[in-house]
Amino acid sequence: MYPPARPGDPLELVDTPALLIDLDRFEANLKRMSGELAGTSVKLRAHSKTHKSPIIAKMQMDLGAVGICCQKVSEAEIMYQGGVSNILISNQVVGEKKLRRLAALACQTQLMTCLDNRENAADLDSVARSFDTTIDVLVEIDVGAGRCGVAPGADALELIDAVGDLKNLNFRGLQAYQGSAQHLRTPDERKSAIDFAVACVNKTLSELHSKNIDCPIVSGAGTGTYPLEVESGVYNEVQAGSYIFMDADYARNLDKDGQFISKFEHALYVYATILSAAKQQQAVVDAGLKSLGVDSGLPVMSENDEVDYINASDEHGVLAWQSKNVSYEVGEKVLLIPGHCDPTINLHDWYVGVRNLRGPEPYVESVWPVAARGCVF
Amino acid sequence: MYPPARPGDPLELVDTPALLIDLDRFEANLKRMSGELAGTSVKLRAHSKTHKSPIIAKMQMDLGAVGICCQKVSEAEIMYQGGVSNILISNQVVGEKKLRRLAALACQTQLMTCLDNRENAADLDSVARSFDTTIDVLVEIDVGAGRCGVAPGADALELIDAVGDLKNLNFRGLQAYQGSAQHLRTPDERKSAIDFAVACVNKTLSELHSKNIDCPIVSGAGTGTYPLEVESGVYNEVQAGSYIFMDADYARNLDKDGQFISKFEHALYVYATILSAAKQQQAVVDAGLKSLGVDSGLPVMSENDEVDYINASDEHGVLAWQSKNVSYEVGEKVLLIPGHCDPTINLHDWYVGVRNLRGPEPYVESVWPVAARGCVF
Repeated sequence: MYPPARPGDPLELVDTPALLIDLDRFEANLKRMSGELAGTSVKLRAHSKTHKSPIIAKMQMDLGAVGICCQKVSEAEIMYQGGVSNILISNQVVGEKKLRRLAALACQTQLMTCLDNRENAADLDSVARSFDTTIDVLVEIDVGAGRCGVAPGADALELIDAVGDLKNLNFRGLQAYQGSAQHLRTPDERKSAIDFAVACVNKTLSELHSKNIDCPIVSGAGTGTYPLEVESGVYNEVQAGSYIFMDADYARNLDKDGQFISKFEHALYVYATILSAAKQQQAVVDAGLKSLGVDSGLPVMSENDEVDYINASDEHGVLAWQSKNVSYEVGEKVLLIPGHCDPTINLHDWYVGVRNLRGPEPYVESVWPVAARGCVF
Repeated sequence: MYPPARPGDPLELVDTPALLIDLDRFEANLKRMSGELAGTSVKLRAHSKTHKSPIIAKMQMDLGAVGICCQKVSEAEIMYQGGVSNILISNQVVGEKKLRRLAALACQTQLMTCLDNRENAADLDSVARSFDTTIDVLVEIDVGAGRCGVAPGADALELIDAVGDLKNLNFRGLQAYQGSAQHLRTPDERKSAIDFAVACVNKTLSELHSKNIDCPIVSGAGTGTYPLEVESGVYNEVQAGSYIFMDADYARNLDKDGQFISKFEHALYVYATILSAAKQQQAVVDAGLKSLGVDSGLPVMSENDEVDYINASDEHGVLAWQSKNVSYEVGEKVLLIPGHCDPTINLHDWYVGVRNLRGPEPYVESVWPVAARGCVF
């Protein structure tokens, strides 16, 4: 699929629907996270499942990230091929084909993966041995998200002991990500969830301590909660991803004063064209379910809060408004803030990086592939 | 992205998450639709936005489809390159880049597009003239879906008259698709919606008749309602797409006896692997928001109705059950029926066609690219 614009194009020449980056805000978001962690003992291990771009991963590493996370082996392969060299697969890797590719990659670059199952650990060890390599692993504990991970404490210790017996695996620490806390709306809810996560980590660390097992890494946290994990004193890596772009759903998280959290700004849009304006107080854009992830809600109009995106079908989105001040003509273009950035990005093949999006004469500065789009294996 | 299997592989070697076709059921669905329309004056113009595959489009045409629909110019390009030759873009095409590509394609193959706007018609005419070609168009009328389309009757006639004045456009008929009727649950609701659509078409046809304007084509309908449009006597093309695969949401449509409609069978699955089984009465699969469209509901387990897919995150799905008879081990594979087939298919690069999926020794017979995946332009 060819890109929707060329570097140098004025904004209005960008074909739609296009995944647009506001480069000025995006760069500010990158720097802000770097600043947030400066002077702490916590490193950013940026989650590349958000952006799926080695170009962006390298920008994050240039600003101090210790490495990146991927969710899949195929993503890790793309990141490695793009020049990234310290990769955590923050997920279980199951099945012989994937384990072999993981081991092959571990022979070439610094790589870790997660485990929450003894047989899976034995399979990984066996594949690593056949590749004559050792593989670094984090044991995943469930810190309240109710997804993957063994129970903290004794269960975790049992798996860590089993990993210790496997000669081609190298226990490096804990994966302790509380995914379901990221979008809790109030600071109190998020604090309560992360207090619980920290207690789970501490329970496991004291088991390890009693057995003199070293635990160099405790990794977790996301854009919604990372200040809490940083403050905890037990996490030393945070896995935030969405902070670079933000999305409509993250914008619904509130700060302690009940305001929207605005530390990071929206920097990602789907640029769309009005296809139809045949009805009163309604228009139809060319961006629907195949351009926008709607799992966390429909997109939000960026430039006009009197207009709502009320319905998505495969390739259409219906805009509606009550105000008599609003009208659109066929061919006009609008900026939509996706409900959820990660699945939205995964629908597109290209980023169109726009400089000066909110100033005079916005133009396309960069066109980057969404290199790991579709990497589900 | 390389394919998750090779032809000849046994089912268990298919990497996950994979988009699996039950070839036996799929072929039966294709033939059943052909049989449904045999002996009527209505032709199938199969919607390729469902499958995005010229291979499947040609199977549909071999079984009697008069042509196919696409939703985007870029899809039409892929279909043409794949050997398909009678294409309706069942959508508005807006913007000079797209209009030029449309005209270029119209110089090479039989192509129609839709219009609901006078300025857009003038733009298309102007581009067609610059390509020294004429372009066939359907005027889209809103038959109750509330999306694109001019009002039936006088408004439609006004646009058709305007199209008639444009020398490089050729009015061929009406696009009259009632999209929002497809998933109405009861036969009465669907009948009522399509009765209204038919009235809208008739109102427009009588305006045309009074002006002696010929209207060779009336095109519309989908998998949920096509028997009604066929019976109406006014439609002569139906645009069904989902019938080839069906999905969990279409399975919620009821027939007149209050039963699930079972004329077409589920033939599309996302094949997924259990990643984690660390908790009681719960397991986690490797197929989440980036493998499954969830806009019309979460996926449904194909082989075990005691198990529910209760939560999707980017690359995880949580399965849960109450029954004590259920258990899964890490590495086991399951078949998930997607909530909505079209956006699910658009997430994948490959179809894995399995023969004998429900019999002994199921195996991969075909591996087809989802050739128009990501064709949003």
